[in-house]
Amino acid sequence: MARLRAHNIAVSLDGFATGEGQSLETPFGHAGGRLMSWFFPTRTFAAASGHEAEATGAGSTGVDDAFAAQSWNGIGAEIMGANKFGPLSPPWWEDESWRGWWGDEPPFRTPVVVLTHHEREDLVQGETTFLFRDTTPEAALAEAAELAGGLDVRLGGGATVVREFLDADLVDHLHLVVVPIVLGRGVRIWDGQEGLEERFSIETTASPSGVVHQVFTRTR
Amino acid sequence: MARLRAHNIAVSLDGFATGEGQSLETPFGHAGGRLMSWFFPTRTFAAASGHEAEATGAGSTGVDDAFAAQSWNGIGAEIMGANKFGPLSPPWWEDESWRGWWGDEPPFRTPVVVLTHHEREDLVQGETTFLFRDTTPEAALAEAAELAGGLDVRLGGGATVVREFLDADLVDHLHLVVVPIVLGRGVRIWDGQEGLEERFSIETTASPSGVVHQVFTRTR
Repeated sequence: MARLRAHNIAVSLDGFATGEGQSLETPFGHAGGRLMSWFFPTRTFAAASGHEAEATGAGSTGVDDAFAAQSWNGIGAEIMGANKFGPLSPPWWEDESWRGWWGDEPPFRTPVVVLTHHEREDLVQGETTFLFRDTTPEAALAEAAELAGGLDVRLGGGATVVREFLDADLVDHLHLVVVPIVLGRGVRIWDGQEGLEERFSIETTASPSGVVHQVFTRTR
Repeated sequence: MARLRAHNIAVSLDGFATGEGQSLETPFGHAGGRLMSWFFPTRTFAAASGHEAEATGAGSTGVDDAFAAQSWNGIGAEIMGANKFGPLSPPWWEDESWRGWWGDEPPFRTPVVVLTHHEREDLVQGETTFLFRDTTPEAALAEAAELAGGLDVRLGGGATVVREFLDADLVDHLHLVVVPIVLGRGVRIWDGQEGLEERFSIETTASPSGVVHQVFTRTR
């Protein structure tokens, strides 16, 4: 059965997965690039960005890269929130020409279910197909699992979507990256998650880069 | 000059340093002993509890113990909040017979400045003297530093007191222990601390016990 896996969900020390004031120019709000600064030096990022890392060997290959790369192994579909597909301000669903942040060849290369109250036609972009659905976590997972063809489903975020799927107890694997900054405001990952540790085993690795990788594996 | 050092400040993943509903029976509220479960197996705890660890060798001596023991090195005085000295419910200051949680021989063995709006006579308990002061963080630190006789001052907590001294930029060393539980409610350590990382270097160590030790050292 397809597992539902969330990877590379970066949070600040105080538990914010994105900052305040998200917009087209500032998708992470006042957090800027700080939550992902551990990711940019990795070989996985270089490869996903089309920097020809495979050929040139660009990028780090330590523990940060190992975790970053896990996100791409054995995934047959993704589920993401409306807020990951495009900016809420101005709202992407009011602009039919908006085709995601990722250009002509998005890195997903699988079906992607976008949870949104503003449904529209399927969007084929390179090897990725975006499907816009106004539905429940359970129904979204059922469709994504079917599309994944025996592989796992990635839960792509943002934080609000991760929380909703945790609330519904649908998450099998959650990889958080705790970044040593205090954001003070933004979207909290932990709200409503009291007692989460009772459903998961938790393994923690401190990276030389300063971040902490925490892997939550569902135990029941 | 005396440094102000806070050690062994345990927080949940969601940043709560104590739970909700603190009382005489439940000093950590609904968190119970979970925030300190990493500490109880250590040799340092065994020694502080009078279990004759020195003689028997009881207790773990790994990274958790190394951090726990740091708290006792080179300390000449402590500052603690009213909430650490005794329960708020019923309030300890209405009971003159309350002499702290620690029995006839408290482990401090130094002067301890208790920050409280309810001043009372100095209390000598074994080798520890408690001084009750209704004053500012700056004045409390000045007095404690004087009493410390050239050694450092420990900032003993709780979380509210740690935050107040961080707000006043008086903390030189902060050792947090992040425990893999989600408490959901209680006293937050991070409120109002946005941008803390700009004043501190942060070193992180993952312990085999599952907790994460984070050492904040003031850089300016």
